[in-house]
Amino acid sequence: MIAEIIIIGDELLYGARTDTNSGFLARTLDAIGIDIRYITTVGDDMDQLVDAINLAQRRAKIVLTTGGLGPTEDDITKKAICKVFKRNLIFHENILEDLQKRFAARGVKMPAINQNQALLPQGAQFLKNKFGSALGIVIDEQGRFFCAMPGVPVEMEIITEEELLPLLKARAGDITIVRHKLRTAGIMESTLAEKIRPGLKFAEGVSLAYLPSYRGVDLCIKGIGTIKEEVEAGVKILADGIRRSAGDYVFTEDDRQLEDIVAELLTQKGKTLATAESCTGGLLGGRLTAVPGSSRYYLGGIIAYANEVKMNRLGVVRDTIERFGAVSAETAKAMAAGVIKALGADVGISITGIAGPDGGTEEKPVGTVFIGIAFSDHQAAAKLSLGVHRGMIRERAVTAALDIIRRELINLA
Amino acid sequence: MIAEIIIIGDELLYGARTDTNSGFLARTLDAIGIDIRYITTVGDDMDQLVDAINLAQRRAKIVLTTGGLGPTEDDITKKAICKVFKRNLIFHENILEDLQKRFAARGVKMPAINQNQALLPQGAQFLKNKFGSALGIVIDEQGRFFCAMPGVPVEMEIITEEELLPLLKARAGDITIVRHKLRTAGIMESTLAEKIRPGLKFAEGVSLAYLPSYRGVDLCIKGIGTIKEEVEAGVKILADGIRRSAGDYVFTEDDRQLEDIVAELLTQKGKTLATAESCTGGLLGGRLTAVPGSSRYYLGGIIAYANEVKMNRLGVVRDTIERFGAVSAETAKAMAAGVIKALGADVGISITGIAGPDGGTEEKPVGTVFIGIAFSDHQAAAKLSLGVHRGMIRERAVTAALDIIRRELINLA
Repeated sequence: MIAEIIIIGDELLYGARTDTNSGFLARTLDAIGIDIRYITTVGDDMDQLVDAINLAQRRAKIVLTTGGLGPTEDDITKKAICKVFKRNLIFHENILEDLQKRFAARGVKMPAINQNQALLPQGAQFLKNKFGSALGIVIDEQGRFFCAMPGVPVEMEIITEEELLPLLKARAGDITIVRHKLRTAGIMESTLAEKIRPGLKFAEGVSLAYLPSYRGVDLCIKGIGTIKEEVEAGVKILADGIRRSAGDYVFTEDDRQLEDIVAELLTQKGKTLATAESCTGGLLGGRLTAVPGSSRYYLGGIIAYANEVKMNRLGVVRDTIERFGAVSAETAKAMAAGVIKALGADVGISITGIAGPDGGTEEKPVGTVFIGIAFSDHQAAAKLSLGVHRGMIRERAVTAALDIIRRELINLA
Repeated sequence: MIAEIIIIGDELLYGARTDTNSGFLARTLDAIGIDIRYITTVGDDMDQLVDAINLAQRRAKIVLTTGGLGPTEDDITKKAICKVFKRNLIFHENILEDLQKRFAARGVKMPAINQNQALLPQGAQFLKNKFGSALGIVIDEQGRFFCAMPGVPVEMEIITEEELLPLLKARAGDITIVRHKLRTAGIMESTLAEKIRPGLKFAEGVSLAYLPSYRGVDLCIKGIGTIKEEVEAGVKILADGIRRSAGDYVFTEDDRQLEDIVAELLTQKGKTLATAESCTGGLLGGRLTAVPGSSRYYLGGIIAYANEVKMNRLGVVRDTIERFGAVSAETAKAMAAGVIKALGADVGISITGIAGPDGGTEEKPVGTVFIGIAFSDHQAAAKLSLGVHRGMIRERAVTAALDIIRRELINLA
C-alpha cells in the first residue's frame, strides 16, 4: 500500500521551521508496511494546497496532511479539504461544547476565535486530539483514505498513535518490512563500522544503515520481502553478527533512550542518583527527568556553574580547583562525591568541561570534558574530547555521562 | 522568481533522518527574493525521481536537488539527470585528476569506487565542493535553471554559498521580499490573535503568520512586491500596529531567544541569577547556559526533585510542604528564596509543578505549575496551567520562568 504525506506551512518554505512531522509519520507507516512515495511541503496558499492534495490523491491511496488546522486566518486546510472533496464547512455544536469544557477544566476562558475549531467539513470522521483543540479530519471513501492533522508535533503524534493507526492497520497490504535497530553509545561511527564489518552477513532483501547523532550511533537493519519468516530470519542473522562484534556498546535494541536504560538499571539495583553539573548547566538532570516516574530514583542535583557553588555546595576544596583546575578529573570526582553527600544519594555523577566558544587552552581545548562518578566507597573519572561546537559538546557530554552510569551499574554486584 | 526543491533519499521516506537541507536552501533563496513553492522528498528510485524532476521543471524555473550524488550504487541522481535532460554520462579526466590530488594531499590512496565521481552528465556546468568529492551539477538552458548538489549538509551549504548563490542572484530579478518577526511569550496564540486583530492594517502584498511553539508565539510578517520602499513601508505599518497592541508580550523583534534577552537584562542590571527546579529537573539551567558567556550572570542551581532536597538544600520548611503541598505558591516562593541564600545570588527563580503523566489531583491537575521569583527583599509566585503532555508542560514551564525573570528585570529600578 502506497501513501503520501503533505506538510503544510509557509514557515517551512522559507526555512523558519524544520519539519519533523513527516519523519514521525514515515516511521509509523513504515512499521505497518505502508510505503511512502513522496513527501510534499506546501505553503498556506489555497491553489497550491489544493493542487498538492489532488496530485497526491491521484498517485496514492492514502494521503496524510499536517498543519493549517489552527483557529487563525492563515490556517486554510479545512477550506482546501472542502474544495477538493466538494463539501461545506458546518458547525458542530457537540465539538464546541467539548472545547469549552477543556478550557474550563484548565480554568481558562475560551477565546471566541476558538469557535472556529468547531467548524468542520461535512460528512467527515473526526479524530480525537488529547493535547489540543484541532481535531483530525478523515475522509474515507471510494477506496481512498485522506486524513488531515494539526501541525503541532505532540498533537499530531497522539492522534496518529491512538486514532489514525488503528484505521490504517486495517488497510496495510502483504509486503513485509522488518526493521531492527541496535543502539550504541560511547563509540564513533567509523570505529564502530570497522569493528562490526568483518562479521556482517546480508541475506537477500536485507540492508544496514548507520545513523549517527549526538546521542550515539544507531545501526538500522531493514529487511523486505513477501515471506515474513524469511525476512525475519535474514534480519536476525545480521543483528546477531552485529551484536557479537559490537558487544556492550549496544545499549538497547528497541526505541528506548539511554536515560530509559539508566532508569531501568537504577530501579533494578535499588539505587538513587544525584547529579552535579557545570558546563551542561542542568541538561543531564533534564534528560534524566524526561522519563516519567524518575522521582523514584533521581533525587535531584546541584548546578555548579560558578566555582563558588562547586566549593560551597559540593564541598570541592579550593586547593583542588586551584591545583588541577575546575575542569579536571580531580574536580569531577570531588563534585560527584560532593553531591552524594549533599543530597544523600547512592550514586553521584558529575560533568565539568569547556563547552566554548571561549575558555579553551592548549592543554585543555574547547571540547575537553571530565565525567566523574562516585559511590559511597569509590570514585572514578573519565576525560573526553567531544568536538568544537557548544551545543554538540553539551549534548555529547550528557550522553557520555548516562553511558558511564549505565556501564557502572551493569558491573555493580 | 519561483523555485522548487527536491530532497532525495530513502532514509527520509521511512523517517530515519530529518531533512535540514531544504530549510537551509529555503532561507538562502528567500533572502534573495526567490519564492519556494514546493519542497518534494523522494526516494532512491529512478522512476519516481525522474517524475519528480519533470513535475518540478513544469512548475518552476529554478529546480534544486540535494542527495544521491555519492559513489555507491544507491546514488542515482546523475542517471536521473541524464534521463530528464536526454544526455550521456561522460568521463571527465580533469575531474579525476583533481580528485586524486585531493586524496594524495590527505595522504590517502583514493578508493577505486571514487572514479565514479568523474562520470558526469555531458554539457553540464560543475560547481566546486570544498568539503567532499561530489561536485554540484548545473544545467542552465532555455530560461530554466537546474542544479543538483550532494546531500551532506556541510557540502551542500558550502556549494550553495560559494558557487550557486552568485548564479542565482543574477536571475533573482526585481521582486523584493521583506520579513519581520515579533516574538512573544506569556500569551496563548488565540488570545494574542484577539488582542492584536483590531489594529491590524494590511498593505497590498503584506501578510501575517502565527508561529506558535512551546517557546512562545512568533508573529511573522511578510511583504512582497516590486518597489522595495513600498514593501518596507507596508511591513512597518503592520509591525507598528502589532507592537502597539501586543505591548510587552513582545520580547524581541529579531532572531534572539528569550534566554538571550534575559542574559542581556541581567548583564545590564548587574544581577546574578540562581535556579531551583523541581518538575523541570534542570532544563531551565540548561537553557540559561545554552547562551555562551552565561557564567557572567548565572551562578548555578539546585535541582530539588525529591522533597528532602527541597528541605535540606533549599531550606523549605517541612510545614510549608505539608500544609500547602510541594506544588504550591508557598513552596515555589520558599524555593526561590532558598536558592538565593544557598548560592549567594541576587535573583532566584523556581519551578515546581505536576508534569505528569501521574500525580495530578482534582485541585491540582497535571499541568499545574508554580513559578517563584525571589529578590533579597521580596518574593512572588505565579500559578500556571500548561497543558497535559509531560514534555510540553516542562518546556512551557521553562519559557514561563524565563518570561517572568524578563518582566521582573524590566521593572527593576
